[in-house]
Amino acid sequence: MTDTVVMAQRRVGLWIIGACGGVASTTALGLAALARGLTPPTGMVTALPQFAGHDFDEPAGFVLGGHDIRKGNFLTAARELHDRSNVFDERTLTACAGDLETWSANIRPGVVYKPNAAITALADRTDVRQARTPREAVDAIQADLKAFKTAHKLDHLVVVNAASTEPPFEVGDDQQSLERLLPALERPAPAALPTSSVYAFAALDAGFPYVNMTPSRGATLPALEDLARKRGVPHAGQDLKTGETLVKSVLAPLFARRNLRVLSWVGHNILGNRDGQVLNDPDNKASKVKSKDALLAELLGYKPQTLVSIEFIESLDDWKTAWDHIHFEGFLGAKMMLQFTWQGCDSLLAAPLVIDLVRLAALAQRRGESGVMSHLASFFKSPVGATEHDFGKQFLMLEEYLAKR
Amino acid sequence: MTDTVVMAQRRVGLWIIGACGGVASTTALGLAALARGLTPPTGMVTALPQFAGHDFDEPAGFVLGGHDIRKGNFLTAARELHDRSNVFDERTLTACAGDLETWSANIRPGVVYKPNAAITALADRTDVRQARTPREAVDAIQADLKAFKTAHKLDHLVVVNAASTEPPFEVGDDQQSLERLLPALERPAPAALPTSSVYAFAALDAGFPYVNMTPSRGATLPALEDLARKRGVPHAGQDLKTGETLVKSVLAPLFARRNLRVLSWVGHNILGNRDGQVLNDPDNKASKVKSKDALLAELLGYKPQTLVSIEFIESLDDWKTAWDHIHFEGFLGAKMMLQFTWQGCDSLLAAPLVIDLVRLAALAQRRGESGVMSHLASFFKSPVGATEHDFGKQFLMLEEYLAKR
Amino acid sequence: MTDTVVMAQRRVGLWIIGACGGVASTTALGLAALARGLTPPTGMVTALPQFAGHDFDEPAGFVLGGHDIRKGNFLTAARELHDRSNVFDERTLTACAGDLETWSANIRPGVVYKPNAAITALADRTDVRQARTPREAVDAIQADLKAFKTAHKLDHLVVVNAASTEPPFEVGDDQQSLERLLPALERPAPAALPTSSVYAFAALDAGFPYVNMTPSRGATLPALEDLARKRGVPHAGQDLKTGETLVKSVLAPLFARRNLRVLSWVGHNILGNRDGQVLNDPDNKASKVKSKDALLAELLGYKPQTLVSIEFIESLDDWKTAWDHIHFEGFLGAKMMLQFTWQGCDSLLAAPLVIDLVRLAALAQRRGESGVMSHLASFFKSPVGATEHDFGKQFLMLEEYLAKR
Amino acid sequence: MTDTVVMAQRRVGLWIIGACGGVASTTALGLAALARGLTPPTGMVTALPQFAGHDFDEPAGFVLGGHDIRKGNFLTAARELHDRSNVFDERTLTACAGDLETWSANIRPGVVYKPNAAITALADRTDVRQARTPREAVDAIQADLKAFKTAHKLDHLVVVNAASTEPPFEVGDDQQSLERLLPALERPAPAALPTSSVYAFAALDAGFPYVNMTPSRGATLPALEDLARKRGVPHAGQDLKTGETLVKSVLAPLFARRNLRVLSWVGHNILGNRDGQVLNDPDNKASKVKSKDALLAELLGYKPQTLVSIEFIESLDDWKTAWDHIHFEGFLGAKMMLQFTWQGCDSLLAAPLVIDLVRLAALAQRRGESGVMSHLASFFKSPVGATEHDFGKQFLMLEEYLAKR
Ligand SMILES: NC(=O)c1ccc[n+]([C@@H]2O[C@H](COP(=O)([O-])OP(=O)(O)OC[C@H]3O[C@@H](n4cnc5c(N)ncnc54)[C@H](O)[C@@H]3O)[C@@H](O)[C@H]2O)c1
Ligand SMILES: NC(=O)c1ccc[n+]([C@@H]2O[C@H](COP(=O)([O-])OP(=O)(O)OC[C@H]3O[C@@H](n4cnc5c(N)ncnc54)[C@H](O)[C@@H]3O)[C@@H](O)[C@H]2O)c1
Ligand SMILES: NC(=O)c1ccc[n+]([C@@H]2O[C@H](COP(=O)([O-])OP(=O)(O)OC[C@H]3O[C@@H](n4cnc5c(N)ncnc54)[C@H](O)[C@@H]3O)[C@@H](O)[C@H]2O)c1
Ligand SMILES: NC(=O)c1ccc[n+]([C@@H]2O[C@H](COP(=O)([O-])OP(=O)(O)OC[C@H]3O[C@@H](n4cnc5c(N)ncnc54)[C@H](O)[C@@H]3O)[C@@H](O)[C@H]2O)c1
Ligand code: NA
Ligand code: NA
Repeated sequence: MTDTVVMAQRRVGLWIIGACGGVASTTALGLAALARGLTPPTGMVTALPQFAGHDFDEPAGFVLGGHDIRKGNFLTAARELHDRSNVFDERTLTACAGDLETWSANIRPGVVYKPNAAITALADRTDVRQARTPREAVDAIQADLKAFKTAHKLDHLVVVNAASTEPPFEVGDDQQSLERLLPALERPAPAALPTSSVYAFAALDAGFPYVNMTPSRGATLPALEDLARKRGVPHAGQDLKTGETLVKSVLAPLFARRNLRVLSWVGHNILGNRDGQVLNDPDNKASKVKSKDALLAELLGYKPQTLVSIEFIESLDDWKTAWDHIHFEGFLGAKMMLQFTWQGCDSLLAAPLVIDLVRLAALAQRRGESGVMSHLASFFKSPVGATEHDFGKQFLMLEEYLAKR
Repeated sequence: MTDTVVMAQRRVGLWIIGACGGVASTTALGLAALARGLTPPTGMVTALPQFAGHDFDEPAGFVLGGHDIRKGNFLTAARELHDRSNVFDERTLTACAGDLETWSANIRPGVVYKPNAAITALADRTDVRQARTPREAVDAIQADLKAFKTAHKLDHLVVVNAASTEPPFEVGDDQQSLERLLPALERPAPAALPTSSVYAFAALDAGFPYVNMTPSRGATLPALEDLARKRGVPHAGQDLKTGETLVKSVLAPLFARRNLRVLSWVGHNILGNRDGQVLNDPDNKASKVKSKDALLAELLGYKPQTLVSIEFIESLDDWKTAWDHIHFEGFLGAKMMLQFTWQGCDSLLAAPLVIDLVRLAALAQRRGESGVMSHLASFFKSPVGATEHDFGKQFLMLEEYLAKR
Repeated sequence: MTDTVVMAQRRVGLWIIGACGGVASTTALGLAALARGLTPPTGMVTALPQFAGHDFDEPAGFVLGGHDIRKGNFLTAARELHDRSNVFDERTLTACAGDLETWSANIRPGVVYKPNAAITALADRTDVRQARTPREAVDAIQADLKAFKTAHKLDHLVVVNAASTEPPFEVGDDQQSLERLLPALERPAPAALPTSSVYAFAALDAGFPYVNMTPSRGATLPALEDLARKRGVPHAGQDLKTGETLVKSVLAPLFARRNLRVLSWVGHNILGNRDGQVLNDPDNKASKVKSKDALLAELLGYKPQTLVSIEFIESLDDWKTAWDHIHFEGFLGAKMMLQFTWQGCDSLLAAPLVIDLVRLAALAQRRGESGVMSHLASFFKSPVGATEHDFGKQFLMLEEYLAKR
Repeated sequence: MTDTVVMAQRRVGLWIIGACGGVASTTALGLAALARGLTPPTGMVTALPQFAGHDFDEPAGFVLGGHDIRKGNFLTAARELHDRSNVFDERTLTACAGDLETWSANIRPGVVYKPNAAITALADRTDVRQARTPREAVDAIQADLKAFKTAHKLDHLVVVNAASTEPPFEVGDDQQSLERLLPALERPAPAALPTSSVYAFAALDAGFPYVNMTPSRGATLPALEDLARKRGVPHAGQDLKTGETLVKSVLAPLFARRNLRVLSWVGHNILGNRDGQVLNDPDNKASKVKSKDALLAELLGYKPQTLVSIEFIESLDDWKTAWDHIHFEGFLGAKMMLQFTWQGCDSLLAAPLVIDLVRLAALAQRRGESGVMSHLASFFKSPVGATEHDFGKQFLMLEEYLAKR
């Protein structure tokens, strides 16, 4: 009883970088629909019966805000996604429109720090902040976060990166420790941090848990991991595992355990949403392909020939479609095939996991944990702080974590 | 060093019921090729690096024999399979022909006890034993097994059921305990045991480990489990998990853990070998479909609409081909799809597991274990003595078993 | 100019048997949306640029009515289909709701004549007419048709059978000529005609063109073909070719022309709409499977092993999904594979063809043609009056027909 | 009777450029097996029953020779292909080995004229002719062709280009007419012709029919078409249509005729033979992808978004595997999908067509025809002299050509 009272009182701020994106708007719609009892929590790991006993934050306790560099808000973005991909129920959209509008008032202009062409092409908000140094950007972001926290009297504030994928960032000396990074933040050039890490720095430095849904760098730098530990803040990443790679992470262990030799694994992904558009830029795509390809060698114990493509096909909109062809050798040298096609709605696969990760980050914070939440490996294509890629084993890590209270 | 000496001396008899079948002849060819160093142990679980420390029986120590009701032998069966399905390497076949011929001398006429039409159609051996009572059949089988053991001075003799699938058998009172079964064995009718269980009784009663590769009853009857414990013999079954069902057993847990609701799961299997021909009989097929369909509800925690078909398409020969269509619901009610096609060579998927199971049964016997080897659940579609169907968890059971020496 | 005036004046009645079904309601919605300029004529053959010069009836000239045995109307049926299968645009539905309501006033209770269980289960309309003899049923139907024609001052009235598939009907002596059929219509038993043919008789006898979208008998009986010629009425059928079979009818000629030998052709269809539910009854399914399977032997010139299944999987609703596996032999005996999966929305594939066929039947009537419209073979799985199954060649027949004015 | 006598006497030389390749060696094996009655003519268009009355050259009348730049011969190439891809029957290989060896004596070192890196990497024959000018190369080639003709007393000599695909060649002024080309042939630079056209020039100029199986330029240049007409020689090309594109050429007309709007068409090809290896070079691949992609716009009448990839996956060897995803819009804007996977053995699909084309070229020569054989469009991805890409209509062109004798 007391528990319920406490829960009801807890207010959780969810600050989404990329607030006008497909994942963000679906998360907003989903939280509103859950709070109104209009939809079951399908797709949410924290809603599984076996985790029922946990004091996870209720949808009704969530307040949303975020940064974006494009015009728009939670509601227009949700409507646009629906118009193009036909993914929502009209009635749910209508019933939740008011909530999305209210939360939209909390969206602030994003920061772009040395963006590449693909990102620049998106930034149609006139008030986007062009920071001169990383430090300037950090200050602006922290001001927004703190204002949000105060205005809404939040018990937790979790920052989630759901912004467009940025190109790979080469780590140098400046990122090796917090000590070396701090002075570099004051210099206009060379770029001490990619944009995603600027946001991550701002969040962690201000004491807010940070979760990275994307293959962008975010908090995955020695200096930022350092920062997280020093400030006592939990964080997790990177790149949500929602489709083809998720399937890979249960099939590859199967081949390994049965001693069937994978000769080649080809995966072709096609999608047509804005994410796909940004990934159409070879630079930005590089981050993604790397993240999708790396796990096979780890799971199999050797490196078969692999091929991963991800291409923008406009008509598919949010319907990410993948074909995987797995060629393997069995007993006496016989060559056999397993092929699969995945037809999933990308934003609707990601959004429930965003809610899960916010709940789990808030829980970790209440438990007083800091640094990488390696028990969240099952959520990510490139799990930070974990070498395990086998989904089954990763899930056991989550179960064990939740079992010990 | 001493270990190696002991290993080299150990002789393992592998007695295959269904000796002229695809699985049996592939197992024979594989063992000969392994012993001659002509092929790597791809597809063998016991050959995985992580199990390297175990004192598993070497291929060179195997001696083969078996029962069948059709004319033919290991060599003719292997050649026939190759002619139809183009699965072996001509050079391997030639190099091992002599070994297969030698072992073929150990094949004895099988026993058919109240066979149905599909089985009767196969029995072209004129010396097939038509037993009047189960007891008569048991005696004949035991005589063959004991003679084989003596003639080849075997350290182990493992009996493997790789015979055609028989129709389902309804368990009644007579099969509830060994006590009740014994008198019933003397009666010509009603059939106290299906044919597969007659063989299983003979093996267990004579103290030989028994492994059931098929969906037929075999040792899965209270009276026979009783017998195994009383005689101190290990046994395992039933229905090897080699294709579509294997894939199911890693995909279904994925949906469960991600809280994605499976709406329907359709699986269509086509194959063209003799196994497929026998399964074309609705009676015999019933056993198989049940075995392929049952695990979903257990793995998901609820029963989605399912459909499993298995049809005989002659041109496919040993190339079992399956299409699975999985329809599932994600967040906010969105419906998505995963489809896969499996193109596997059935006998070559099964044979290395036969060798694994013989090795593991022999190991269990050396360890003094008796009764159901429930740690072998990962090998079977309908694992006896285990409720776990998740392949990953089943495999952990094997790893744990092998870890404790 | 004069032409346009004439066109504008022409009023075409479309009477749909099965008026509350998926195909019927989609046709109604489509016609309303076309008349209102809300949708392009995608999927309509008569709207192809190469046929632009023809005086086809405009959507605005259509008036709809029909028979059904279930409660409901065009609007409720369209809404139900949308709720289950998410196939329409909400805005189109809203804009056309009024038209559908207006037309719904023209729906009359259907006739069931010796229905089987699957059909009986549907008939929840209390005023369904249970005819004692075929003649009684014919009279009731003709009264409805004539009243509709008069009330709406129609220039044409085309009757379309889009009712649930009925079981196969065995043709006997009574159906061999009109002469023999007429007295049999007066007898309560044995059934001189299946229900679909009762409707067909009523239409043709009253001088209204008749088109059969379904695999049911309809006008495909010597006696009814006789009647059509005598009354000077055109008719066509049977079983619309909209999905898997359509693809078959272009792929099979490819194999034939390249002299690639089809070894086996397996086609598994799954669907979840009411049509699928009725087809779940083995009797009703038999008509469909026959229609889907027959064309291969004709197209290839020999009979490969074939397998066609059609199963009800509720979650798929109107999304008919099919997997076809084609195994073929090439040069030097090599075996190869082509597989395809079809994911189509059944009612939306059928509806534009309904409009096409009504337009083409009205055209034929204006041209003074009677009897089977064999030039419409490309529309049907089992084209009446044509042995050609090659879609390309069938289409040429249509082009040639339309070329000669 | 007299006809048969004439046929038996006719000797046809088949000169293959790329004689040690997969297509060439399969053609050789196939011709030997056909002549020996060891295999049926499956896959050969000229062996279709409807063309039975034609005086096509018998396999027994063929003599093979050719150019290549790699070591090897018909027999070693056939064995290598079999070892890697397991495509032939061991017995056929053994029975025909002698024939292949005999023909191998007719193989001469090829000519490379300004090769790119991918081609240079192949040329391991030490006696490959490095020509200084196109004219030098032409002279060398013609000497080989004439010597072959004389030595074997050939009635026909047909030159077939089955060499590796070369990069695209930009056509300039020198290739616009024979008049302008002739002086350019004497100049070392710039390259007046790509290698494939050097061979084509040599053949046509010497009066030998020429067929281009590849996407390389070959005879497709105004100056060479001029030459063919002047010398009175028939020729055909280019790029055999054997797999994914073949299927495209029957599916695209289906969508067009049903007025279903193709939104996007994605085709991913993977293969692992030497052809695939050469195509792995972006330059050489460019020729192929262009050839595979062009036909869609022509067939549909508009340009949907398309994507064609072709990638080298070693383990697949000769088994070309393709996945095509076709996204299309139907009535009322509904989006639907057709997907197919093609698993074909590339050399075995091509070889019977090589025999067909030689037979048809010889027939054309006997009929006194010269210039482009546009009636052979159905064989090619980029048919020279024809704009029709619809396989059905292309095939009608062949039937009409053969009907008029
Ligand atoms: N299943 C999934 O959807 C999935 C899975 C794994 C990873 N991801 C990743 O999640 C991210 C979001 O996906 P999405 O489909 O919502 O993409 P989206 O393109 O719809 O949304 C991204 C949003 O980020 C905004 N943005 C870009 N740069 C920004 C910046 N510097 N500051 C603030 N906002 C910025 C964009 O304007 C856009 O509104 C992508 O990086 C994607 O790769 C998604
Ligand atoms: N991947 C796989 O191959 C796989 C997987 C799971 C289960 N299985 C099961 O393994 C069994 C063997 O498969 P297969 O492909 O070798 O089949 P198969 O038909 O080639 O061989 C079965 C053999 O059993 C013989 N037989 C039948 N009844 C007998 C009897 N009463 N006594 C002795 N011999 C008898 C038959 O004559 C035949 O030679 C089948 O039951 C099959 O369902 C196979
Ligand atoms: N692509 C396609 O949709 C397609 C293709 C080929 C054939 N068909 C056939 O078209 C028919 C209609 O398909 P649907 O999806 O609309 O099915 P549906 O079940 O939605 O509609 C059929 C309607 O017919 C009514 N009906 C049944 N018996 C009747 C009778 N005796 N008198 C009057 N009405 C009767 C039912 O009540 C129902 O409303 C089916 O036979 C189907 O097999 C459809
Ligand atoms: N289904 C099919 O196999 C198919 C279909 C369409 C087109 N093609 C084309 O046919 C050609 C042959 O295919 P393949 O699989 O046999 O390839 P391959 O690589 O096995 O054979 C090509 C041969 O050409 C030789 N060669 C290269 N340059 C030469 C030169 N300048 N002179 C003489 N020989 C030369 C190579 O050494 C090689 O032996 C390729 O261009 C391929 O793209 C094949
Ligand atoms: Na088998
Ligand atoms: Na090839």
